[in-house]
Amino acid sequence: MSYDEQTVIEKFFRHLGAVRTDVALGIGDDAALLRAQPGCELVQTIDVLVEDVHFLAGSTARSLGHRALAVNLSDLAAMGARPCWALLSLTLPRIDVDWLGEFAAGFGILARTHEVALVGGNLSRGPLTITVQLTGQVPVGTALRRGGARADDDLWVSGTLGDASVGRSLLAKPRGEAQADWLRARFEFPTPRVALGEALRGVASACIDLSDGMLADAPRLASASGCGLSLDVDQLPVSTALRACGGGFAWQHALQGGEDYELCFSAPAAQAPTLISLSAQLAVPLQRCGKVQSTAGLELRRGADVIQFSHSPFDHFSS
Amino acid sequence: MSYDEQTVIEKFFRHLGAVRTDVALGIGDDAALLRAQPGCELVQTIDVLVEDVHFLAGSTARSLGHRALAVNLSDLAAMGARPCWALLSLTLPRIDVDWLGEFAAGFGILARTHEVALVGGNLSRGPLTITVQLTGQVPVGTALRRGGARADDDLWVSGTLGDASVGRSLLAKPRGEAQADWLRARFEFPTPRVALGEALRGVASACIDLSDGMLADAPRLASASGCGLSLDVDQLPVSTALRACGGGFAWQHALQGGEDYELCFSAPAAQAPTLISLSAQLAVPLQRCGKVQSTAGLELRRGADVIQFSHSPFDHFSS
Repeated sequence: MSYDEQTVIEKFFRHLGAVRTDVALGIGDDAALLRAQPGCELVQTIDVLVEDVHFLAGSTARSLGHRALAVNLSDLAAMGARPCWALLSLTLPRIDVDWLGEFAAGFGILARTHEVALVGGNLSRGPLTITVQLTGQVPVGTALRRGGARADDDLWVSGTLGDASVGRSLLAKPRGEAQADWLRARFEFPTPRVALGEALRGVASACIDLSDGMLADAPRLASASGCGLSLDVDQLPVSTALRACGGGFAWQHALQGGEDYELCFSAPAAQAPTLISLSAQLAVPLQRCGKVQSTAGLELRRGADVIQFSHSPFDHFSS
Repeated sequence: MSYDEQTVIEKFFRHLGAVRTDVALGIGDDAALLRAQPGCELVQTIDVLVEDVHFLAGSTARSLGHRALAVNLSDLAAMGARPCWALLSLTLPRIDVDWLGEFAAGFGILARTHEVALVGGNLSRGPLTITVQLTGQVPVGTALRRGGARADDDLWVSGTLGDASVGRSLLAKPRGEAQADWLRARFEFPTPRVALGEALRGVASACIDLSDGMLADAPRLASASGCGLSLDVDQLPVSTALRACGGGFAWQHALQGGEDYELCFSAPAAQAPTLISLSAQLAVPLQRCGKVQSTAGLELRRGADVIQFSHSPFDHFSS
């Protein structure tokens, strides 16, 4: 059996995502036809994974399928939006049906979990590059933005930090040690905080997802809000596995490590009880770790002490 | 001045597209916020240009910026949709400000021509790959599809065919000869038939855009409609420039050459006067070149004679 572009689309992608009644026309024409919900705004994002930049050659195809969608889901979560429709542009050096089967499984399981339909895309020959575009919806005027934080708001973060960057560094090591395996899974199969994002509408004042790490992303939220931040590194949530594998450097990983895809958000102090109850209800850890300040800039503390830290935000072209 | 990711976005992309009042939040947050028009369906497509696959190393940046958007505009034209919002994912081996300036100019001029806002995207390091996702809108139930052709409908095509593939083969040759320059421009700066696509709503029974060439794409329209096609190759529209530069092989180029981004559509015979008047009104040549048939398959004719032709549809993985 020959696997040309059409055959691959039929075999692996046509029925991959969730079935949605608002998809009037999915894969197979020049474009997809979709029905937006009245009273909602559309929320759109696009993200790419490039071999040797965003992942190492030899990353499992299942992980790549998961991550390519997860990074986009995380962007919509940061806006408080409900994901709906995805487009996939896949550039492959060759057709490898085993690879495609695993990639589709990783993508498809996550898509169906979040009721995302795969409505179109394309397949090309070229260096391995995975681009996913995702559209979601949010009731008009309720989207979370980066720019809504106010001085004296608390700064919160979901989950635990630093796991993914340490997990990534453990990819090449043999499997079987439970804590290392858990850290690797945090890198390979991140959990986008979609339900949390939706629940934060009307509660959080500003929100961003942590793709480049707390040290790079939290100041973006503050800066978009015209504020500064005071961050207590002792309050950054660190997993037991990271403490075990990251040695004494756990807090540095939590501060600087990227690709955790947790949500970092601000909220007035009066929202703390609501957030504590949300955390229990969604079974997502939420941790207060700082304060929004009227003075611009980033102040790092360990408890009462202000510590010095060289601030070097992540940039794709600096390496 | 250092050109990191944020600087490049600010300098070249933030204000690149059209300004639209339905963009609630554009570039700069985790995702864009857009307001759909009531009574419309969303129309979504994504396409990629990969170096050495879809274009040659050394293609001008201005042409790449234009083509990356044009191929998506052409998909929406084939659906009869009005384009609205674009996302751009750009993977570059390095930051070259001259290249970026030219790329942005090519993209931006075409975006503003069609009132398309650039609402988001990303910039990464990696092999040169340009992915554009485009969303448009069309009144509910009026979108053109591939599957609506009926036996005895006429088959029509816009513009002239084969120019782009011959133009591509002339890219490396010295400039200055008017007809060769015109053919190259047909490859480098294709004209997506957006106004024509909109005007064909309620007139055409089915529509597809010609990216892979008439021989590959017209049968897709027929097959999606459960029909066959009879195509008169003597009726394929061929430009004066192609006749001059393509020698006696002009009709083969018109039949097989890809990347013209013209529209191929079917319409009941009774619509011919409307189409002739539309052609004059929009200043877009429209040519009848075949008939839809109830019998499956593709029949090629030259006038009264049926000719043999080996049918080899384009596939990205076959070479």
